[in-house]
Amino acid sequence: MNSNRFDVVTVGNAIMDVLVHVNEAFLATHALHKGTMPAVECSGGSAANTAVGIAALGGQVAYVGKVNDDPLGRAFLYDINTAGVQCVTPPLREGPPTGRCLILVTPDAQRTMNTYLGACVALGPDDIDPALIQNARITYLEGYQWDAPMAKEAIRKAADLARASRKKVALSLSDPFCVERHRVEFYTLVRYHVDILFANEAEIMSLYQTTTFDDAVQAVRRHCVMAAISRGEKGSVITTADTVHVIDAVPVARVVDTTGAGDLFAAGFLYGLSQDKPPALCARIGSLCAAEIIGHFGARPERSLADWVKERFG
Amino acid sequence: MNSNRFDVVTVGNAIMDVLVHVNEAFLATHALHKGTMPAVECSGGSAANTAVGIAALGGQVAYVGKVNDDPLGRAFLYDINTAGVQCVTPPLREGPPTGRCLILVTPDAQRTMNTYLGACVALGPDDIDPALIQNARITYLEGYQWDAPMAKEAIRKAADLARASRKKVALSLSDPFCVERHRVEFYTLVRYHVDILFANEAEIMSLYQTTTFDDAVQAVRRHCVMAAISRGEKGSVITTADTVHVIDAVPVARVVDTTGAGDLFAAGFLYGLSQDKPPALCARIGSLCAAEIIGHFGARPERSLADWVKERFG
Repeated sequence: MNSNRFDVVTVGNAIMDVLVHVNEAFLATHALHKGTMPAVECSGGSAANTAVGIAALGGQVAYVGKVNDDPLGRAFLYDINTAGVQCVTPPLREGPPTGRCLILVTPDAQRTMNTYLGACVALGPDDIDPALIQNARITYLEGYQWDAPMAKEAIRKAADLARASRKKVALSLSDPFCVERHRVEFYTLVRYHVDILFANEAEIMSLYQTTTFDDAVQAVRRHCVMAAISRGEKGSVITTADTVHVIDAVPVARVVDTTGAGDLFAAGFLYGLSQDKPPALCARIGSLCAAEIIGHFGARPERSLADWVKERFG
Repeated sequence: MNSNRFDVVTVGNAIMDVLVHVNEAFLATHALHKGTMPAVECSGGSAANTAVGIAALGGQVAYVGKVNDDPLGRAFLYDINTAGVQCVTPPLREGPPTGRCLILVTPDAQRTMNTYLGACVALGPDDIDPALIQNARITYLEGYQWDAPMAKEAIRKAADLARASRKKVALSLSDPFCVERHRVEFYTLVRYHVDILFANEAEIMSLYQTTTFDDAVQAVRRHCVMAAISRGEKGSVITTADTVHVIDAVPVARVVDTTGAGDLFAAGFLYGLSQDKPPALCARIGSLCAAEIIGHFGARPERSLADWVKERFG
């Protein structure tokens, strides 16, 4: 691999999203009539979306994630490379096909996801190149990886390498069910191995099993160096060693699809951190990126985020 | 006066509210047709509303405010005494009539206020009984008082007495225009003489002249022992020496009239503090009181807040 310094390396499940527009009645009945739903395939995967967001902001970014060498996998690699992200993980030549996620989008812009991990479960410690991690300022890990035992080992290796080189480790809790499944492991990880935690409101409350949002905020503040908690239209809350920041969401004319909002918030925040911006400004950049992504279908930016951030924050 | 200990003494403009229901077109045209608007008179005044809220929570509370000995003034004193608040300020026997506020309530539950201060401007240092302040845990002052020079002197005397007796001084910024008029004085007051600051989002941003809410939060945190900032449906933010709390609003089935929301938030918060509750719980009690008041017309509670708080928080 290239020995350039990276701002961020992200590690996660390489997933193709299959987006389908449905109404509430569909979700209520689960009555799927073949051929009635036009589907749109596009590259996804939480940490991959974040990597593409960082590239769109002008950051130097690499991605570690496993696809199969099948048409969906080649499309995934084509998309992520074209977006300016360096992806060096060798695809599987046999075994399970590229992972995919059926995303049902209802008129209220909420998403219901059904994921088949496929080739993702084959990501292992050998896919973690020590030089890559050692040359990145921040290594960003996806909580979803805990669902695959080999991928979890890969994550542990990446986190250990980053810390041993005095680089930052960031973790996304990914989703509240994921936190439910792995609470004890996540708790220990956050306490001892993570510098920057990303979570939404439901995830952070699940991690600390609190009944109020503020109790979770105070718990994570005592627990973790820095946490960036996104709250949808309520904005975000950033905890640091010194204080707690309360950041408003960037208003959006029309919310079309919330897929990727958290991933792009993380992209903006991580990009800001890699440029040594203060935490509150990192959150504002994150909010702007999230606002871009929820204004259209799909979880990859459709405009130059770098220009937008420059216009807004100079 | 009675030498009992008070939880809180509040000092403010004694005002009768005259509530009128209007539509947006009325506000746009200012075309007032006599007799077309049924008016409801009820006792108001920001710090008086707060005092009544504290009494409804079961707190021991006194109120300092000046009315005229006219029908509106007698109604004001009858209401506040009946609510369980001790009011010992002698009414004016001559001079300006009792102060009043015409409140135009539009269908979106927002209020437009037009205040005539009347007798309020006659409140002076002689109305501040040292024993009253010295025997109260918290003295709560209304920013509106800065609009009347004699009342301002009364406020200064109350604040000095409270601090000299090692009691707490609380201040409400009252409204963003009030902050605009008295920014330098408020700034100095908050820095050197206030233990607990109450403000809403617009007021705190005006005080520190910031363009973002978070910048104001960080400024007040460095500046003031404790600040309780209410944000309407966005909840409240509490800053302390140690941390920042982010508290959700209590959901309300239907917002009828937001008059008094800030006053009752302050009532709940102050009552909690006087009972040595932690700041986050004080804010939750405040949010519950605010939720009660915006569910009906008028700025005085219509149910036992004590029972409601007990039911909710034990």
